[in-house]
Amino acid sequence: MSFDRLIDSIIQKKSPVVAGLDPKLDYIPSYIVEAAREQYGDTLDAAAEALYQFNVGLIDALCDVVPAVKPQCAYYELYGWQGVRALSKTIEYAKSKGLFVITDGKRNDIGSTMECYAKAHLGTVDVCGTQCVPFGGDALTVNGYLGSDGINPLLDICKKDDKGIFVLCKTSNPSSGELQDKNLGDAPLYAAMGDMCEQWGGEPGKYGYSCVGAVVGATYPEQLRELRERMKKTFFLVPGYGAQGGKAQDVALAFDKNGIGAIVNSSRAIMCAYKKEGCDERDYAAAARREAVRMAAELNEYIGK
Amino acid sequence: MSFDRLIDSIIQKKSPVVAGLDPKLDYIPSYIVEAAREQYGDTLDAAAEALYQFNVGLIDALCDVVPAVKPQCAYYELYGWQGVRALSKTIEYAKSKGLFVITDGKRNDIGSTMECYAKAHLGTVDVCGTQCVPFGGDALTVNGYLGSDGINPLLDICKKDDKGIFVLCKTSNPSSGELQDKNLGDAPLYAAMGDMCEQWGGEPGKYGYSCVGAVVGATYPEQLRELRERMKKTFFLVPGYGAQGGKAQDVALAFDKNGIGAIVNSSRAIMCAYKKEGCDERDYAAAARREAVRMAAELNEYIGK
Repeated sequence: MSFDRLIDSIIQKKSPVVAGLDPKLDYIPSYIVEAAREQYGDTLDAAAEALYQFNVGLIDALCDVVPAVKPQCAYYELYGWQGVRALSKTIEYAKSKGLFVITDGKRNDIGSTMECYAKAHLGTVDVCGTQCVPFGGDALTVNGYLGSDGINPLLDICKKDDKGIFVLCKTSNPSSGELQDKNLGDAPLYAAMGDMCEQWGGEPGKYGYSCVGAVVGATYPEQLRELRERMKKTFFLVPGYGAQGGKAQDVALAFDKNGIGAIVNSSRAIMCAYKKEGCDERDYAAAARREAVRMAAELNEYIGK
Repeated sequence: MSFDRLIDSIIQKKSPVVAGLDPKLDYIPSYIVEAAREQYGDTLDAAAEALYQFNVGLIDALCDVVPAVKPQCAYYELYGWQGVRALSKTIEYAKSKGLFVITDGKRNDIGSTMECYAKAHLGTVDVCGTQCVPFGGDALTVNGYLGSDGINPLLDICKKDDKGIFVLCKTSNPSSGELQDKNLGDAPLYAAMGDMCEQWGGEPGKYGYSCVGAVVGATYPEQLRELRERMKKTFFLVPGYGAQGGKAQDVALAFDKNGIGAIVNSSRAIMCAYKKEGCDERDYAAAARREAVRMAAELNEYIGK
């Protein structure tokens, strides 16, 4: 019905950080890759195994200092169905460690097809009377270009199973304005999408936020401020902090006066902290943890002020 | 560089029909489902195996009368990574039978993440020096809401590996207008997306069409006519024929005066032809073939006239 469960965890861990699990083989310490190659050769199975083992180390190190992880589907599909199996195992492991899992798939389709995505990523599926869990995430990123037909099937599952969605609103990339900034007369397109999120969201939870969140990039602080003002009950997932150029001051605009209302993603800076630190690669998980703690402290200096 | 390879096959088979492979368990003849349950119990593995066996029968029956198949990712993800493995095997099997495979994933993301989707679905991935094929489709449906950053990584692979993309432009669903029909002053949003497709497409191939296609629904004939006029070198993938309400006369508007320029999807009418015919379920593949042949003949009466 809402993002209450995620917000509870953000408050408890004093961290509005979601760790992006976007593992490229280049990011993974060589001892993990070599172990997988020894077992499986130079195959998709080896790559997928390396991804999973890398994630397990990160999750173990991060699970008490961040509330959530966000695996990005593209990095798993890159290694075929074997990679998707690694995604599935990663989600299961993260949940076993008490983390809220945001599956970043930006899925979109219509009617009964969207219902399949909803069940696949947030719900259960019936196999001849037995309920099975396909992927089991807690929230899914989605693209709203197809309108309500593509969102309604998700809302049913969000309500029934206490899950959430994040609709792409104003994305963090340089060309996001090509379409999203188009002027519709009374407002730009991203604001129209924002208004639709507010409408789709329905009743807010105990913190004032509904089950329909929005993706709003840290790289456009003016729009971030404008959308926070406009979208009172919509929880934000904020990409673009760090490498893409978003600063803590910018990101703070995504939060309300109570210091809640958003979660900020960091992927590479956390996953590759060991490279930046220059520490031993076998210390990658501890380095990731240090970066996640540092980032939360930096954000907390600005949030709600 | 273009959709020449697909158009060659459309001409050779005299069929502008793409068979949608969107298998629900309910659509699959019970003897196939029961055989899978006997082997795997009531599990995701059983469902995935039933999907794959159903597809093999369809592909065998259709491969000389349709130029292409379009598996819809959602129906495979619904059964977890096991379902995605069935998708991968389906693509491989369809290609071994000479079919052009359009992977209907409506993927979208930015920069290096989109590059992963591009390699995953259309290209190859490097695993420590060995090139592996993750999914191996010929074309991918994508969502352009993020602008050029989300499209450029696909164009590189289309050029290098002779693949194509279809960008969502005007979708066939009832609520597609909520966003896509918004007036941008000089044109509606779907037309702006169409103009971007024309620009992304670059050089057209021998039939006048580039490697960037567009999804334009049969359920909005006026817009179909308008976009065909506006998008001279963009090949169309047309959903919405049949069950959704699009008629052969409507669909004909997607084609140019030479009778090319589009491919028309049919999913349920082909997959479930045996139910409509009332024939024995073991005859499902032959019934699917009869419907695909009938549909092509009906379309050919109107196309290019």
